[in-house]
Amino acid sequence: MKRIFLTVLVFLSAHSAFSQMKAEEADSLMLRKIYDMSLLNGKSYDWLDYLSNKIGGRLSGSYQAQQAVEYTKAQLEELGLDKVWLQPVMVPKWTRGAKEFAYVQTSPGVTKNVNIAALGGSVATPAGGTKARVIEVQGIEDLERYGKEQIQGKIVFFNRPMRADLINTFEAYGGCVDQRYSGAAEAAKYGAVGVIVRSMNLRMDDFPHTGSMGYGDTPVSKRIPAAAISTNDASYLSGILKMNKDLEFYYKLNCEQHEDVQSYNVIGEITGSENPEEIMVVGGHLDSWDLGDGSHDDGAGVVQSMEVLRLFKEVGYKPRKTLRVVLFMNEENGLRGGKKYAEVAKTKGEHHVFALESDSGGFTPRGFSFDADKAQFAQILSWQELFKPYLIHYFELGESGADVGPLKEGDVVLAGLRPDSQRYFDYHHAANDTFEEVNKRELELGAATMASLVYLVDNHGLKQINTAKKEKM
Amino acid sequence: MKRIFLTVLVFLSAHSAFSQMKAEEADSLMLRKIYDMSLLNGKSYDWLDYLSNKIGGRLSGSYQAQQAVEYTKAQLEELGLDKVWLQPVMVPKWTRGAKEFAYVQTSPGVTKNVNIAALGGSVATPAGGTKARVIEVQGIEDLERYGKEQIQGKIVFFNRPMRADLINTFEAYGGCVDQRYSGAAEAAKYGAVGVIVRSMNLRMDDFPHTGSMGYGDTPVSKRIPAAAISTNDASYLSGILKMNKDLEFYYKLNCEQHEDVQSYNVIGEITGSENPEEIMVVGGHLDSWDLGDGSHDDGAGVVQSMEVLRLFKEVGYKPRKTLRVVLFMNEENGLRGGKKYAEVAKTKGEHHVFALESDSGGFTPRGFSFDADKAQFAQILSWQELFKPYLIHYFELGESGADVGPLKEGDVVLAGLRPDSQRYFDYHHAANDTFEEVNKRELELGAATMASLVYLVDNHGLKQINTAKKEKM
Repeated sequence: MKRIFLTVLVFLSAHSAFSQMKAEEADSLMLRKIYDMSLLNGKSYDWLDYLSNKIGGRLSGSYQAQQAVEYTKAQLEELGLDKVWLQPVMVPKWTRGAKEFAYVQTSPGVTKNVNIAALGGSVATPAGGTKARVIEVQGIEDLERYGKEQIQGKIVFFNRPMRADLINTFEAYGGCVDQRYSGAAEAAKYGAVGVIVRSMNLRMDDFPHTGSMGYGDTPVSKRIPAAAISTNDASYLSGILKMNKDLEFYYKLNCEQHEDVQSYNVIGEITGSENPEEIMVVGGHLDSWDLGDGSHDDGAGVVQSMEVLRLFKEVGYKPRKTLRVVLFMNEENGLRGGKKYAEVAKTKGEHHVFALESDSGGFTPRGFSFDADKAQFAQILSWQELFKPYLIHYFELGESGADVGPLKEGDVVLAGLRPDSQRYFDYHHAANDTFEEVNKRELELGAATMASLVYLVDNHGLKQINTAKKEKM
Repeated sequence: MKRIFLTVLVFLSAHSAFSQMKAEEADSLMLRKIYDMSLLNGKSYDWLDYLSNKIGGRLSGSYQAQQAVEYTKAQLEELGLDKVWLQPVMVPKWTRGAKEFAYVQTSPGVTKNVNIAALGGSVATPAGGTKARVIEVQGIEDLERYGKEQIQGKIVFFNRPMRADLINTFEAYGGCVDQRYSGAAEAAKYGAVGVIVRSMNLRMDDFPHTGSMGYGDTPVSKRIPAAAISTNDASYLSGILKMNKDLEFYYKLNCEQHEDVQSYNVIGEITGSENPEEIMVVGGHLDSWDLGDGSHDDGAGVVQSMEVLRLFKEVGYKPRKTLRVVLFMNEENGLRGGKKYAEVAKTKGEHHVFALESDSGGFTPRGFSFDADKAQFAQILSWQELFKPYLIHYFELGESGADVGPLKEGDVVLAGLRPDSQRYFDYHHAANDTFEEVNKRELELGAATMASLVYLVDNHGLKQINTAKKEKM
C-alpha cells in the first residue's frame, strides 16, 4: 500500500514537474514571439515619429495635445480593439508665450545672455522684465539661514546640482526637484522678486530644462516669476557671482495661466476572454512639455503602451483578463488624467488587478519596479528567469508611476518600466527631447518587455493580498 | 570534550563568518570609493575629448595614430606610475585617399548618388572608376548558386542585413561580417569586377560603415575593389534592382596599401607590492578607423583603461600584483599590437594572470564576459553581488577581446567589458562615431566597473587552473 502510494506520489510529482516545465516552455516561447514581433515588425517607432515630428510638443490644453488625442485614438481604432474611447478630463492650460530672454550684467553695458525657460505654472515677469541682484543658495533650507535681510528685493538662484554619484539618476532628480517645484513659493516669503533654478540635468550643456512648479497658498499678488537656466549658465553665474556679488540678472518671461480646458484620456481595450471584470492597464502620458517634441517624456511610453496591445493581436494571444491601454493627459502639470481615470474606475466599481506605466524614457529596458505585496512580489520574481535572454534583470520593489499611482487600492499591483536611466535627464523637459535621441531598438525592446510582463500577469494571475495573508498564517 | 569542541567550532565558524562579512564590507566600500571617484572626479571624459576632438580618427600608420601614442604616453607619465614605455610594433599602413564617389545609373543620364566608403585593405578602382551591372546576393554561399555565368563582369552586392531579433547586437554582427571581410576574395573567384557591401548597421541611415577586409591568397592582379554603402542606399539599390536588373553601378575608390611602418603599443605599469611577477592587464586599442573620430571604437576603451590605474592611485589602493594598462595599436586592420604584446610577454617569460579589455563602446556597462576555467568562473560569480548597486548584472562565459586574446595560455583569465550593445553598430566604423555620441556618465560607469573587477582580482587572487582541477578530483 505504502509502495503504491509512493509510486503514485512520484508519478504525480513527476507529472506536475513535467507540467510546470511545459508551462515554462510555453511562457518562454511566448516571450520570444513577443520580442521578435516588436524587433522585426514593430510599430512603436513609426508612431513615435508621427507623434514627435508631425505633432510635436503636446502641453496640456494645446492644439498639439488635442491632435495627439485624435491621432492615437485613430491608431488604436485601426488595431481592431474591442473598444476605443475618450475619457473627458478638464486640464489646466498654461502657455509660454514669446521665447524668454535673460542676461547677466556685471557692470553697466557689460552683459552676457543666458539660456532660460520659464517653469511651467510660473507667472510672467512685469512687461519690462525683472532685474535685480542675485543671491545663490543650495536649496530651500538655505533661505532661512540668509533671511529676509539678505534676500529681500533679490532674485534667488537655486543652484543645488543633481548628485552625480547616485547610480539611479531619478534618485538624483528627487534630491533636487523641490527647489524647482517650491523654490518660488518659499523665496517669496523672504521678499525675493524672482527665482532662477539650475536645470535638473546631470550634463553640462546649454539647454534650460522646464518642469512644473507651484505657488502653494501664495496670494496672487505675491507670486514671483520662476525660470530654469542651463547648467552651463548656472555654472557661469555661480562663478561670476563669487567675483562680483553686486551683478544684476535680468529676465523676461511671457507666460500665462488660462482657464481650464476640456481634454481627454485616450483608452483602448481588449476585453478579457475569461475574466473580463479583472482589468489590467498599460499606459504612458500623452501630454509633454513644449520645448522639445516630448519623445522620451513620454512619447516613448505612449507608443510602447499602444504596442503592447498590438503585439498581443499580432502574436495571437487573447488575454483572459481585460487589457486596457490608457494614454493619460496632463501628467506634467496637474496629473488630472491619472486622477480622473482612477476616479471613474472607482465610481464604476471596476476591479483593477494590475497597472504598468512607462514614463522613464525610451532607453534600453533594464526591468521594472513594483508596488506590490510581498507575496505578490515573490510570485513576480518567479518569472524573472524568463527575462534573462533579453537582459532584463531589474525587479525591485519601489515606485511605479505618477499616472497609475491613483489606482492604488486593495489588491492591485502597480509597476513601472525601468529603462537605463543614465541619459534621461540630458533630455528631460528640454528642447533636445526629440525623436533623433530615441533609438528604435531600445524603444522596441521596452515595448516587448512590457508586453511580456503583462502576458505573464494575464496568464498566471496575481496573488490576491487576502489569499496571500491567509497563506502566511 | 564534545561540548568544548562544539563551542570552539561555533566560535571559529562565527569568527570566520565575521571575518568574511568584514571582508565583504571592505570590498563593498572599495567599490563605492571607486565609483564615486570615477563619477565625481573622473578624467576619462576629458581624455576622450582630447583624443577625439584634438587628434581624431587614428588609423594605423597615420600621423594621428602617432599623435595618440605620444599623447597617451604623456598622460600616463603624469599619473606617476612606476613605469611607462612604448613597445615597438610594425603596422600596416592603408590610406583612403580622396573621398570615394558612387552612383546608381538606372538609364542613360539618370543617376542617384550613393554614400560609399572603401573597406579597409581594399585596392582602388581603376583611375576612371568601376562601372558594371550589379548582382545582389545574401551572402557568400549565394555565389556558388549563381555561378560564374551570372557573376562574371558584374559588381556583387552583398546585402544580408544584420538580424534585428538578436538581443546581443555583436551576435548579429558576427552573422554578417564574413561578407564584408571575405566577400571580395570569394566574388573574384567567379569573375566579379567589384564588391559593394551593405553596411554592418542595424539602423537605416546614410552612413557607410568601413571595416577590414582581406584578399586571402587572391593574386594581386585578381584583386577587386570593395566598399560599403549605407543601409539606406542598400535598401534603395535592392528595391530598384527588382525593377531594373540592368542598372549600372559606378564607384571610384582612391585607397592605397603602403609598406608597413613603425608604431607602438603604449604601456603603463603599477608594479605589484606583493606579487609583482603576477601581471594583470587592462586595455583598449589606440588605433581607430578614419571616418569618425573613433570615440566609441575604441577611444572609450583606451581612456577607461587609463582611468583604472588613475582610480587606484586616487583611492589609494596599491595593487599586490602588477597592473598594466596596455593601449594596443592596430586592432582594426592587423591586430599587430595585440600579437606583439603577447609575443614579448612570452619571450620574457612573464606570467599574466588576468587581462580585461574594453572594446565594445562607451555605453552603460552591463557586466563582463569571461574566458575562464569553470572553477575560476565560479569564484568570479561569487563577487557578482558586490556589483548589484551599480546595476552590473551580466557575468557570462564567452569571448573576451581581440587584443587580449593572444595572451590566452595556462591560468590566465581573459575578460571583456560588456556595455549595453543596442546602439553600438549605429556608430561602428562610421563617420558618426564621434565624441558627442558618448555620454560622460556611461563612460565613467564603465571605467569604475572595470576598476572594481581588477580590484577584486587583485585583492582575492584567481584560482589557478591546476588547483581548481585538484579540487574537482
